Amino acid sequence: MKKVMKNYKMILQYEGTRYQGWQRQESTDNTIQGKLEAILTKFTGVRTEVQGSGRTDAGVHAIGQVANFRMDEQIVCDRKLTAEEIMKYINCYLPDDIAVIAMEEVPERFHSRLNAKEKIYCYRVLNSAIPHIFDRRYVFEVPDKLDIQAMREAAAAFLGEHDFKSFTSNKRGKKSTVRSIYEIRIERIGDEIRFTYRGNGFLYHMVRILTGTLLEVGMGKRKADEMERILRMKNREAAGFLVPGKGLTLMEVRY
Amino acid sequence: MKKVMKNYKMILQYEGTRYQGWQRQESTDNTIQGKLEAILTKFTGVRTEVQGSGRTDAGVHAIGQVANFRMDEQIVCDRKLTAEEIMKYINCYLPDDIAVIAMEEVPERFHSRLNAKEKIYCYRVLNSAIPHIFDRRYVFEVPDKLDIQAMREAAAAFLGEHDFKSFTSNKRGKKSTVRSIYEIRIERIGDEIRFTYRGNGFLYHMVRILTGTLLEVGMGKRKADEMERILRMKNREAAGFLVPGKGLTLMEVRY
Repeated sequence: MKKVMKNYKMILQYEGTRYQGWQRQESTDNTIQGKLEAILTKFTGVRTEVQGSGRTDAGVHAIGQVANFRMDEQIVCDRKLTAEEIMKYINCYLPDDIAVIAMEEVPERFHSRLNAKEKIYCYRVLNSAIPHIFDRRYVFEVPDKLDIQAMREAAAAFLGEHDFKSFTSNKRGKKSTVRSIYEIRIERIGDEIRFTYRGNGFLYHMVRILTGTLLEVGMGKRKADEMERILRMKNREAAGFLVPGKGLTLMEVRY
Repeated sequence: MKKVMKNYKMILQYEGTRYQGWQRQESTDNTIQGKLEAILTKFTGVRTEVQGSGRTDAGVHAIGQVANFRMDEQIVCDRKLTAEEIMKYINCYLPDDIAVIAMEEVPERFHSRLNAKEKIYCYRVLNSAIPHIFDRRYVFEVPDKLDIQAMREAAAAFLGEHDFKSFTSNKRGKKSTVRSIYEIRIERIGDEIRFTYRGNGFLYHMVRILTGTLLEVGMGKRKADEMERILRMKNREAAGFLVPGKGLTLMEVRY
């Protein structure tokens, strides 16, 4: 008899500081996906896989990561579980730097990665010589003077559909490296400069290399009109440096 | 020959989580004052005392703590030191959860504690069953339904000059326990309820016991009109519970 499975979608927040990133690994139990799967596997008694909208790297945070998992309808009925009760159970066992903030049952075909239409990432740069201790885990410190206008001009070259092969650390070149960026917003908020990226998907390290390249423009080390050439080169070495993970937060996944 | 001393005022921020509070202690080097004094003593070669505007307890944070210290004018002149350079030096050696965010030379008579006219403290309560992981070190979790209007009515009884003996854990009763509170603001901001206290000074644990007592009113365990009676009792046991230090932040000291 085929089991009927219920499908649950959850919105997750985590501070990435202590973790080896989202993706479960054989070598460590210190991943977000690993923590969630361990709790759900214990809860249901059967190995439960949690599918995230995408991986986040070590040190990267999430305010709106989305994931889904399936649970045998029999378990849900026997224990008369609501989505909210499952959420509370998971939160009870999660460490204090990971939380499920919303949970709902979704149609069986919903897949958090394959159905994602847009993702929004935010990269926070502290542009000050004075430390902001309350934000220290979430910002990358760049005390240099930054030319925001030049960074905005440079960012315009990335809008639309491009092959972002120059902007990924992934060397296995089989999958498509074409992605669309719909918006790049660069704002000064107090001592902070915030880079917000909205696109249909982002390659491994892509947001961090884009930000590093834009920062080099802001510092006057590169010209704003170089960006098209970098895209054409399709070579990681043509682009700028990889900024640290701690400044990056996955803000939202849209379906 | 009498040494001429320069007097420096600094504004400090710290996350109190890891510390045994502001005040230097014989038994531990894990205090904010202790850290600052160790750095300045090493810098000047003579034992340097750092005078804070007041103590903050273990776990309590500061966004605008004020402190001052004196430094031999000869050292300043020999090394041609500006206040900003001293600030940078201190920040270099401070751990990443303490920072000096401003420093200036002030008249010799300035004393950060004795000259303080007003202090502003903020107590943050997370009024939600869903954890806010990014604020977990700065909020006290109270998932119960809270009656804001009742808490505001109760708080009105504390405005003005009163003997706050019921609202302090200090049992040595020699010093005056009379203080003036100029303002208590209770606001709902999203899932958070923020208590802001402005007064001419606060006794040991006073803000935390006031907040605990107001929360008991908010939860319906006490009536708003009980507050005057509690003040009159001049007995700690008449007041409510002591909320945890982690929700408290010293926001500003005015001179």
